[in-house]
Amino acid sequence: MTESGQQAEKSKRLPRAVREKQILDAAVTVFARHGYHPASMDEVSEVAGVSKPMIYSYLGSKEDLFLHCIRREANRLIDAVQTGIDADVAADMQLWTGLRAFYGFVAEHRASWTVLHQQALAVGGKFASEITALRSHAIEMVTKLVVSEGSRKGLGEQAEFSGEGMAAALVGAAEALADWWLDHPDLSPGVLASWLMNLTWLGFNDLVEGQVWRPS
Amino acid sequence: MTESGQQAEKSKRLPRAVREKQILDAAVTVFARHGYHPASMDEVSEVAGVSKPMIYSYLGSKEDLFLHCIRREANRLIDAVQTGIDADVAADMQLWTGLRAFYGFVAEHRASWTVLHQQALAVGGKFASEITALRSHAIEMVTKLVVSEGSRKGLGEQAEFSGEGMAAALVGAAEALADWWLDHPDLSPGVLASWLMNLTWLGFNDLVEGQVWRPS
Repeated sequence: MTESGQQAEKSKRLPRAVREKQILDAAVTVFARHGYHPASMDEVSEVAGVSKPMIYSYLGSKEDLFLHCIRREANRLIDAVQTGIDADVAADMQLWTGLRAFYGFVAEHRASWTVLHQQALAVGGKFASEITALRSHAIEMVTKLVVSEGSRKGLGEQAEFSGEGMAAALVGAAEALADWWLDHPDLSPGVLASWLMNLTWLGFNDLVEGQVWRPS
Repeated sequence: MTESGQQAEKSKRLPRAVREKQILDAAVTVFARHGYHPASMDEVSEVAGVSKPMIYSYLGSKEDLFLHCIRREANRLIDAVQTGIDADVAADMQLWTGLRAFYGFVAEHRASWTVLHQQALAVGGKFASEITALRSHAIEMVTKLVVSEGSRKGLGEQAEFSGEGMAAALVGAAEALADWWLDHPDLSPGVLASWLMNLTWLGFNDLVEGQVWRPS
C-alpha cells in the first residue's frame, strides 16, 4: 500500500465529527489565504488530508463548505466574547472584558477573522447576510449594556433614543480597528481594547486632556 | 424623424462634459439600485438618455464606467468634507464640522454612498482598492487632527502611538453609523454627527453620566 493509501486508510477510521473539524479547519485556512473564488477544493483536500469525494459527502459543495466555515467561525467568535464578558461588574468593565475577548479571538484566529470580515462580505449574498446577522447580534449586546446602564443612571430615555446608533458605531469602530491591526500585528489584544475604551468611554479626552480610562 | 431620433439629435449637440455627467449620474443611480453585476448598460443608457455606443465611446466598458463612478463620488465626498471642515476652530469643532459635512453628503447623495460603501466593496478587486484608499485618506485626516491637538497639549508621544489606530476606529464608526442610518433615515445629519462626537469625544459618559458634548 502506498503512503497516501495508508494515510487514506488511517483517516477512514476517524469519527465523522473529527473529520468534519479537519475539513473545516483546512477550509478556513485556504479561504483566508486566497479568498472564496480562487480557493480550490483540491487545496482544501490536500491541507485537510481528506479526499475530495469525502468532503463533498460530509459538507457539500464549495458554497456549502464556505457557509459552514462562516457559521462555525461566527459561533466561535460569539462564544469567545460571551465567555469573556464578566456580567457581574460595572458597565465599562463589561465592555472592556468583551472587547478584550474579541481582540483575543482575532489574535488567535486570524484566518477566522479574515474569512468572516473580508471574504464573506466580499462574496456577498447569503454569505454577507451571515455577517450582517453577526454584526446585529453584537450591536444588540452593546445596546443592551448601554441602555441598562443609562437607565440605572436615570438617563433611560436618551439611552433608548441614541443607544442603538452609538452601539452600531462602536461595533464598526471595533471591526475597523481589528482590520487596522492586521497591518500592525505587534500590538496586544489588551492595547487594542484599551484604545477602544478610551475612544468610546472617555472619548478623545485621553489624547487631548491626558485623561485615561483604566480597568478598575 | 422619430421622437427618439430627435432626442438623439438633440443630445448630440451637448458638450462632452455635460453628456459624461448625465451618464455618470445615471450610472450611480443604476449601480446603487441593483449592484454592479445585475446592473445593465441598457438601463444606464435609458436613465441617462444617451445611447449605449456613446456611453462606450465616452466612458468605456461597464467596468470602466463603474470605476469612473467610484472615483467621481469619492472625490465629491472628499471635497464635501474638506469644504465643511473649519480649520480655524478647536480640534473638537473641526471634527464636528467634518462629521456633519460627511453625514450631510450621505443624506444628499444616498446613491453615491451605496455605490462607494456597499457596491464597490462587494465587487472587490480594484474597486475595493479605491475605497481602501478613500478610507486611508480619511484616517490620515483624523490622525493629523488628533496628533496635532495631542502635541499642543503636551501628549504628542501618546498621540503618535495610538492616534492612527484610534483614527481608524473613528472612521470605522462613522461608516458603520452611516450604514445604520440607511435603516433609520428620519434622523438629521447633525444628530448623527453629534452622536459620534459624544461617543468619541466624550465617550459613553453622555449616556451613563449625563455629560453631553455640544458645539461651542
